[in-house]
Amino acid sequence: MTEDLHALQRRLAAFAASRRWQPYHTPKNLAAALSVEASELLEIFQWLTPEEAARVMEDPDSAHRVRDEVADVLAYLLQFCGGLGIDVLAALAAKIDRNELRFPVPEDGDRGSLTPNAD
Amino acid sequence: MTEDLHALQRRLAAFAASRRWQPYHTPKNLAAALSVEASELLEIFQWLTPEEAARVMEDPDSAHRVRDEVADVLAYLLQFCGGLGIDVLAALAAKIDRNELRFPVPEDGDRGSLTPNAD
Amino acid sequence: MTEDLHALQRRLAAFAASRRWQPYHTPKNLAAALSVEASELLEIFQWLTPEEAARVMEDPDSAHRVRDEVADVLAYLLQFCGGLGIDVLAALAAKIDRNELRFPVPEDGDRGSLTPNAD
Amino acid sequence: MTEDLHALQRRLAAFAASRRWQPYHTPKNLAAALSVEASELLEIFQWLTPEEAARVMEDPDSAHRVRDEVADVLAYLLQFCGGLGIDVLAALAAKIDRNELRFPVPEDGDRGSLTPNAD
Repeated sequence: MTEDLHALQRRLAAFAASRRWQPYHTPKNLAAALSVEASELLEIFQWLTPEEAARVMEDPDSAHRVRDEVADVLAYLLQFCGGLGIDVLAALAAKIDRNELRFPVPEDGDRGSLTPNAD
Repeated sequence: MTEDLHALQRRLAAFAASRRWQPYHTPKNLAAALSVEASELLEIFQWLTPEEAARVMEDPDSAHRVRDEVADVLAYLLQFCGGLGIDVLAALAAKIDRNELRFPVPEDGDRGSLTPNAD
Repeated sequence: MTEDLHALQRRLAAFAASRRWQPYHTPKNLAAALSVEASELLEIFQWLTPEEAARVMEDPDSAHRVRDEVADVLAYLLQFCGGLGIDVLAALAAKIDRNELRFPVPEDGDRGSLTPNAD
Repeated sequence: MTEDLHALQRRLAAFAASRRWQPYHTPKNLAAALSVEASELLEIFQWLTPEEAARVMEDPDSAHRVRDEVADVLAYLLQFCGGLGIDVLAALAAKIDRNELRFPVPEDGDRGSLTPNAD
């Protein structure tokens, strides 16, 4: 069974500490690294049609690459949050609560707002 | 107590479904949105010195903004993974396993490799 | 008539100097700011279909927003290059020269390589 | 002597046309590619101190890498603007004009606003 989020966060912290990477893992550097990894995930999709993109996991090589980039994004997100004392699950739960108020479920026939990050 | 990752992932899927946002939530669009949100997090830090960046949670407004962007990053990451059937915790556990082999703990006095995403 | 690239680069340098922004305009900060602005441009397109994206200049508001983000990307690129003494036009000319060798024009009926930044 | 911006823009258009890449070069894809390249530039700096970042052109390998990424950013920016009929130099000139009104030069002793993209 897979470890839960906090167990993985502890493994990442121990991994960086034993390799003496903490001086590099400042909040600013980790925010940059997170954005770089998110772009590497996007890079996989940049020339694909929507249809090709939907089939990206059917090819073992690209599936591995996607999983690898997704892991990097989560790794830097957890290290960023760990460094600043942010509970990322609580932050997301609070954000969904706020979005449920901001974006009421539309009446039938209404499409509603386009996106949750409209601001 | 905060919901766990998979409970939040289910809430996000229900939230999008009830607002009929699934047609927008293609893998390619979600990868783009994830990278945009990661950049919005970086934007908070872009002009700060490393010292100012380390104190970003001391100001309530910037602390709220950081939590909000962190939540957006995780939200799009979970929706991206949900759409493609990726278990993001398993992907991260596998990546840490690989990195433990790739980046052995250095002998005393050795700094080791700079970063876990050297490739 | 519009000023040329180097005239605009000089205006940007004078603008920052007269506002005492140079301490913020380090290469690392400008690289971060450039990537943030590029993401703001992408944000305009993130939920659009390819067809909607192709018509983005038909709406005056979104056309203004696109021009504004494009200007920000070029502004930070020129300030980044100015700070490091890079001639951005020479860099691009040299890159096109290299790509013409790397990606020969395909014979008729052959589609050729997918993208100029395949590595 | 280096070609000017519009000559390079024409070379890029001819390069893509002769390799039949235009179907991939939609505005949405080019905006994504631009943001990916800007992140590749940032990646060079992500673990560097501000001091190390300022010396990045002293090492021939990293200098080449920086010039290469800068060229990619400009290449995609010009192709994006070419596809949508945007005059990027006019867009930047207009943006500097607006910023000169928005950010008046501060009186002596006043630091002024932090950054030109405060909104």
